Amino acid sequence: MVLKIGVIGTGAIGQDHIRRITNTLSGGKIVAVTDVNQEQAKAVVKNQNLDAVIYDDGHELIKSEDVDAVVVTSWGPTHEEFVLAAIQAGKPVFCEKPLATTAEGCKRIVDAEITHGKPLVQVGYMRRYDTGYRALKKVIESGQIGEALMVHCAHRNPTVPDTYTGDMSIVDTFIHEIDVLRWLLNDDYVSVQIVAPRKTSKALEHLQDPIMVLLETKQGVRIDAEVFVNCQYGYDIQCQVVGETGIANLPEPSSVVLRSEAKKSTEILVDWKDRFIDSYDTELQDWINSTLKGEVNGPTAWDGYVAAVTSDACLEAKKSGNIVPISLGERPDFYYKTLTAAGKL
Amino acid sequence: MVLKIGVIGTGAIGQDHIRRITNTLSGGKIVAVTDVNQEQAKAVVKNQNLDAVIYDDGHELIKSEDVDAVVVTSWGPTHEEFVLAAIQAGKPVFCEKPLATTAEGCKRIVDAEITHGKPLVQVGYMRRYDTGYRALKKVIESGQIGEALMVHCAHRNPTVPDTYTGDMSIVDTFIHEIDVLRWLLNDDYVSVQIVAPRKTSKALEHLQDPIMVLLETKQGVRIDAEVFVNCQYGYDIQCQVVGETGIANLPEPSSVVLRSEAKKSTEILVDWKDRFIDSYDTELQDWINSTLKGEVNGPTAWDGYVAAVTSDACLEAKKSGNIVPISLGERPDFYYKTLTAAGKL
Amino acid sequence: MVLKIGVIGTGAIGQDHIRRITNTLSGGKIVAVTDVNQEQAKAVVKNQNLDAVIYDDGHELIKSEDVDAVVVTSWGPTHEEFVLAAIQAGKPVFCEKPLATTAEGCKRIVDAEITHGKPLVQVGYMRRYDTGYRALKKVIESGQIGEALMVHCAHRNPTVPDTYTGDMSIVDTFIHEIDVLRWLLNDDYVSVQIVAPRKTSKALEHLQDPIMVLLETKQGVRIDAEVFVNCQYGYDIQCQVVGETGIANLPEPSSVVLRSEAKKSTEILVDWKDRFIDSYDTELQDWINSTLKGEVNGPTAWDGYVAAVTSDACLEAKKSGNIVPISLGERPDFYYKTLTAAGKL
Amino acid sequence: MVLKIGVIGTGAIGQDHIRRITNTLSGGKIVAVTDVNQEQAKAVVKNQNLDAVIYDDGHELIKSEDVDAVVVTSWGPTHEEFVLAAIQAGKPVFCEKPLATTAEGCKRIVDAEITHGKPLVQVGYMRRYDTGYRALKKVIESGQIGEALMVHCAHRNPTVPDTYTGDMSIVDTFIHEIDVLRWLLNDDYVSVQIVAPRKTSKALEHLQDPIMVLLETKQGVRIDAEVFVNCQYGYDIQCQVVGETGIANLPEPSSVVLRSEAKKSTEILVDWKDRFIDSYDTELQDWINSTLKGEVNGPTAWDGYVAAVTSDACLEAKKSGNIVPISLGERPDFYYKTLTAAGKL
Ligand SMILES: [Mg+2]
Ligand SMILES: [Mg+2]
Ligand SMILES: [Mg+2]
Ligand SMILES: [Mg+2]
Repeated sequence: MVLKIGVIGTGAIGQDHIRRITNTLSGGKIVAVTDVNQEQAKAVVKNQNLDAVIYDDGHELIKSEDVDAVVVTSWGPTHEEFVLAAIQAGKPVFCEKPLATTAEGCKRIVDAEITHGKPLVQVGYMRRYDTGYRALKKVIESGQIGEALMVHCAHRNPTVPDTYTGDMSIVDTFIHEIDVLRWLLNDDYVSVQIVAPRKTSKALEHLQDPIMVLLETKQGVRIDAEVFVNCQYGYDIQCQVVGETGIANLPEPSSVVLRSEAKKSTEILVDWKDRFIDSYDTELQDWINSTLKGEVNGPTAWDGYVAAVTSDACLEAKKSGNIVPISLGERPDFYYKTLTAAGKL
Repeated sequence: MVLKIGVIGTGAIGQDHIRRITNTLSGGKIVAVTDVNQEQAKAVVKNQNLDAVIYDDGHELIKSEDVDAVVVTSWGPTHEEFVLAAIQAGKPVFCEKPLATTAEGCKRIVDAEITHGKPLVQVGYMRRYDTGYRALKKVIESGQIGEALMVHCAHRNPTVPDTYTGDMSIVDTFIHEIDVLRWLLNDDYVSVQIVAPRKTSKALEHLQDPIMVLLETKQGVRIDAEVFVNCQYGYDIQCQVVGETGIANLPEPSSVVLRSEAKKSTEILVDWKDRFIDSYDTELQDWINSTLKGEVNGPTAWDGYVAAVTSDACLEAKKSGNIVPISLGERPDFYYKTLTAAGKL
Repeated sequence: MVLKIGVIGTGAIGQDHIRRITNTLSGGKIVAVTDVNQEQAKAVVKNQNLDAVIYDDGHELIKSEDVDAVVVTSWGPTHEEFVLAAIQAGKPVFCEKPLATTAEGCKRIVDAEITHGKPLVQVGYMRRYDTGYRALKKVIESGQIGEALMVHCAHRNPTVPDTYTGDMSIVDTFIHEIDVLRWLLNDDYVSVQIVAPRKTSKALEHLQDPIMVLLETKQGVRIDAEVFVNCQYGYDIQCQVVGETGIANLPEPSSVVLRSEAKKSTEILVDWKDRFIDSYDTELQDWINSTLKGEVNGPTAWDGYVAAVTSDACLEAKKSGNIVPISLGERPDFYYKTLTAAGKL
Repeated sequence: MVLKIGVIGTGAIGQDHIRRITNTLSGGKIVAVTDVNQEQAKAVVKNQNLDAVIYDDGHELIKSEDVDAVVVTSWGPTHEEFVLAAIQAGKPVFCEKPLATTAEGCKRIVDAEITHGKPLVQVGYMRRYDTGYRALKKVIESGQIGEALMVHCAHRNPTVPDTYTGDMSIVDTFIHEIDVLRWLLNDDYVSVQIVAPRKTSKALEHLQDPIMVLLETKQGVRIDAEVFVNCQYGYDIQCQVVGETGIANLPEPSSVVLRSEAKKSTEILVDWKDRFIDSYDTELQDWINSTLKGEVNGPTAWDGYVAAVTSDACLEAKKSGNIVPISLGERPDFYYKTLTAAGKL
C-alpha cells in the first residue's frame, strides 16, 4: 500500500521532503505538487523525475481525489489556510513549522480538528525523531536519574545572515527547544524570563546575542537555555537533564577521534542541516507509516499551538525583562485520548 | 523505476533483507523468494505481506523473467552455485558472506564474471557502509594523519554460543576486519602471524580466546588485532590508525552521557546486531541504486576472493604459530577498470 | 630560611595545615599552637611530634617573638579578632574562610591593613590554586575563546548532614564559586537573583535544594550556577566559560577509563576533600614562599570583604526572590597597587 | 628528623632533584654535592643557595660522616661504581636509571646488597609513582577487570634529536615500559619479539621508527607496545589492560576541554618533562620517608637488574627479528622477603 502525497510549496524544504519520499523512504509517492512559483514546481517535477501532477494552487491539490495526504512546505503565513483546508477535506496533513504564525491561528486549527473528530495534523518538529533526544528521553523514563529537577541547554549557531532579526532567536531558533523540551520532560511551561548577557562583538549591531532563556514548568523544573547564534565555533546543541539521583546529557554526534598537532579532538558540525539530517528521514517515514494506519504519531496541532503561545511569551519576556506567565488552558481531552489510544500516556 | 528482486534463502538474514527492502528502502521490490524449507518461504511471504512468487529452487528463481536481480542469503555452502548461475543468467547478484566456502570457489566466480565481461557480483561486507568507518577513511584520505604506518584494532564479543569453534574466530569474526582494513588502507596483506595470550577462564575449554592477529601489508603497515569473543563486557569494535603525523580512531557509537552512582558513563552495546544495523540499510540501498544504474559499487567478487585467501592463511598461522605469507596474485585488470570507471581509483 | 609559624585553632583543618607544613611542604615550621581546647592542642603537638610551644590563647601566640607568621583556623566568629591582632603586631596572617562573619567585620580588617600600610592578610580560598582552574584561566587569558560572555557552572555534593541549613548553601558551599569566578574573569558582581527549582525528595524537609544562582558582572557576563547539595551521585564541580569565539570547560579530575558491564566509565569523586586536596598544598606552599619574600600573593582581605558582601546579597536574593544589587564601592588603591606591584594587573 | 643527602652529579636531573629536595619536599636536606665538573657543582650550590659541602669526588662524598644517604645522578657508566661504594659504606642510595650499563653490572650490585644483608638501593623508575599508573594498578588489583590477559600500549615522542640511535628506542625510551608493566601486572617477562612497521618519513635515515615490541609474561599475558619517537603530534603514553571481564586504560593527563574552530579538543603534552613531573616529587618524597624509616619502598636493585636483562633481549630481538627468550633466574629470597615485610606481597 502506497500513500499518495501532494506537496504544497516546492522551495528548499519542500524539495528535500520530495526527494526523501521518492528516493530514500518507503511507502509514499509524490503524486501532486504546487507552488506560487509554477516554474519552480515544474522544474522540481522534471529534475526529480516525478510522476506527479502540477496543480494551480494548494486548494485544488487538496481537493484532488488522487491525493491521500498533504505536505505543507509553503511560506509560513499560508500554513494555516492550507491546514484548515486539509482538515475540511478530511485529509492527513504534515505541516512544517510554524503551524500558523499566531497562537490564534493555531487555536483555530486545533478547534477545526476537534470538530472534525479525528486527528489529521502533524507539525514538523523533527527533533523528537533524533536518536539522541530519544535515547535521552529513554534514560529519563527509565528512572535512572530520578525525577527531573533542572535542564541546562544551549542552542548555538556559528553565524546568522544579515536578515536574522532579534525575534528570530525565539521563533526560528529557540522554537525547537520549546517543542522538544516539553516532550522530553512530558511537562508544560508556566513562565519565562529572558536575560541579556554581554553582547558578542561578532553579532550585527541590532542583534542582542547571546540571550539566556529561563523557563519554569508545571512540575517546577527550571530550564536555563543559552541561545547564541554567532558563537563562531560550530553548530552545537547541548541538553543536560539534572535529576534527583543522576544527570543525563544529550549525546554529541559521533566523530573520529583525532590526535594531531598537540590536540586530541573530535569534530563539531558547522552546518545545522547535518545535525538533524537523519531525524527528517525518521520523521517522514514515521508520518507515512502512521498515516497509512490512520494515526497521528508525531507532534500534534495542540503541540503547534503550545509552541506558538510559549513563543509569544518569550518575545514579551525578551522585550520587557519581566517574568512572563505562560497560560495554555487545559489540553483538550481530544489530544489526551489520542495519545492514550496510541499507548503514549 | 523499481528493481525486481528475488531472494534465495529466507532464514534470519534473508528475512531481514526482505523487510528492509520492503519497508525501509526505496527502489526495490521483492517479487520472488525460495528456500530449501518451502514452508518457511511461504510463512515469510505471508507474514511480511509480500506480493511475491515462491519458487521451488534457486535456479528457477534466477531464470525467471520477472526477476531483475538476485539476493543470495542461503546456507553458505550453496552460495557459489547460485552466484555462478546468476552470472550465467547475466543477472546482478548480492551474495552474503562468504562468497564461497573456499578460495578456489571464489576464484571460479571471479573467472566466470571476467568471462561474462561486466561486473555483476557484490559481497555482503557491510562495514564499508558504516558511517564510522567511512568517516575514518575520509580522515586518512584527507592527509590529516600522513601515511598510515600501523593499525591497532579489536573485535570483542561479550560471549559466543557453545557451537562456536576456534576456526570461527577467523572465518566468522575476524573476516570483517580482513575485508574492512584493506579497504580502509587501500592496501593488501602479505603475511600473517597469530599469537595466543593467556586464555580467559570464561571461554569454553576447546576455545583459545583471545587471540592476537598480526598482519603486514604491501605498504609495510603493521596491523595488530585482538579477537576476543568472550570479553563479557560488551560488543566492542575498535580501530586506531597511526599515521606519520597523527592518529585517528574509529568513532564509538554515540550515547547518552550519564552521571550516576559515582560514575560518568556511556553505554557499550552488547548485541552485535545493533552495532552495524544502519550499515545494512545503507549497503542494500546502495546496491539497489547501483544495480539500477548497471554498476557494482560495493565489495566485488575479487574482494570475496581476497577475504577467502587471507582467511585461509590466518587459519594456518593460528595452527602453526608461524608467519604465513599471503599470496593473491595480481588483481585482474577487470576489477581495476571497473573501479576506475566508477571514479574509485 | 624557615618561616616560623603559629597556628590558632587545632581542629580538623588546623591539624591538616599543621601536617602539610610539617610533612609535605618546604620552608615552614610549626613553632606555636593554641586552641580553646588546650587538651586538643596538646594532643596535636604530641601526635604530630611537633617541636612547638602551646600558648594559652591566640593573642599571646601572635605576640610571641618566636612566631613569624600566623595561621588562623579557629572557629569562624573568632577570625576577625585574631586577624586584627596579627595586623596590629605587623605579622603576616593566613586566615581560613570566612575572613570575618560579617561584611562590616571584613571591612574593619581591610581598613586596618590599609592603615598598617603593607599587605599582611591572605584568605584561604584554595580553588585559585587548583591546577584545573588555573589552566582554565590561562585559556581565557590566552584569547582562545575571545571575551567571556557567560559562565555555566555547578557545585554538587552527594549529600549534606542534618545540621546543614539553607544559608549554608551560600556561605559554606557557593562561597567558593563567589571567590573563584571573579578571580577567573577578573571582574566583579553587580547583581544576583536566585530561583528555586523543584525540590529533590532526597533533601531534608527544611532545605530548598537545588537552587539556581544568577549573577551579573560589571562587564555584563551572566553566570548561572546550580548549587545542589544532595545530588547523590558524587562531588562534582563544573565550570564552563562561553566566550565570543569558543568555550572552555574546567578539566574533570583524571581517572582510569573502565570498560565493564556494558559501560565505558570514569570515576566521579564522592568526597569533597579529595577534589581540591592538591590545591591546599599549593596554596600553603605559595603562602610560605610569598611570606618569606614579604608579599601577599593569594586572596587578599579585600577579596574576603567582596565574598562577604556578595554572600549577603545572595542570602537576601534567596529570601526575597528579587534581583538584588551588589555594591562594593571602589577597590582601594592599596590593593590595586599591591597587585600591580606583583605583576598581576 | 632530617635526612642529610649527598648528590653525585649536578647535571640537569641532579639539579632538578636538588631543587625539589630543597624547595618542594619535606624531610631532606642537601648537605653535600660533587661533580666531575667542579665549576658546575659550585654554580649549583651558589644558584640554589645551598648550605652544602662540595666534595672532590663521589667516593669522598659517600664516605663523609655528614652524609646519611646518597643520590646518584652522574653519567650512566659511573652508576655501578658509586652504588657499590654506597653499599660498602652501608648507606642508602637512590640511583637514577640505569642502575648499571650492563646486566652483569646490575647483578654485581644485587649480589653486594644481598651480602650486605639489608636493602639500601632504589632505582629511579618514576612511573611507579605516577598517580595514573597507580590508579590503573589499583583497578587491576580490585578485580574489576578479572585476570589480565593482554596489554596494549604506546610510547610516543613528538621528535628526537639527531643523536638518538636505534638502541635508544629500547634503553632510553621503552625501558620505562619494561619497568612499569611488570610492576603493574606483578609478573615477569619470558620472551620478546620486535617487528618493524613501515618507517615514517619524519625519522632520520638511520632510525627504524616506529617499532612494535611484543612481550610475553610468565602468566601468559601478551603485551604489544608501539614505540614511536617521531610521531610529531605530542608526547603520548598509552596503556590499556585487557582483563577477563573488563578493560582499564591509563588516565590521560587532565586538560581544559576547548570548543573552538569546529573542534572539541583537549591538549596533548609535547614535552615529556611535563608528563611525569609530579611523579618525580612523589618518588623522592617517598624515598626520603622510607629511608628515614630504614626501608626501601621503590624499585629495587633486582628491578634494575631485570630491566637490564630485558633490555638486552629487546636489543637482540630488534636485530635478529627472532623471538628471544628472557631468562632471569629466580628472584632472590632477599627481595621477596623485603617486599613481604613491607606488606607488598
Ligand atoms: Mg522540521
Ligand atoms: Mg554482511
Ligand atoms: Mg580554604
Ligand atoms: Mg627516573
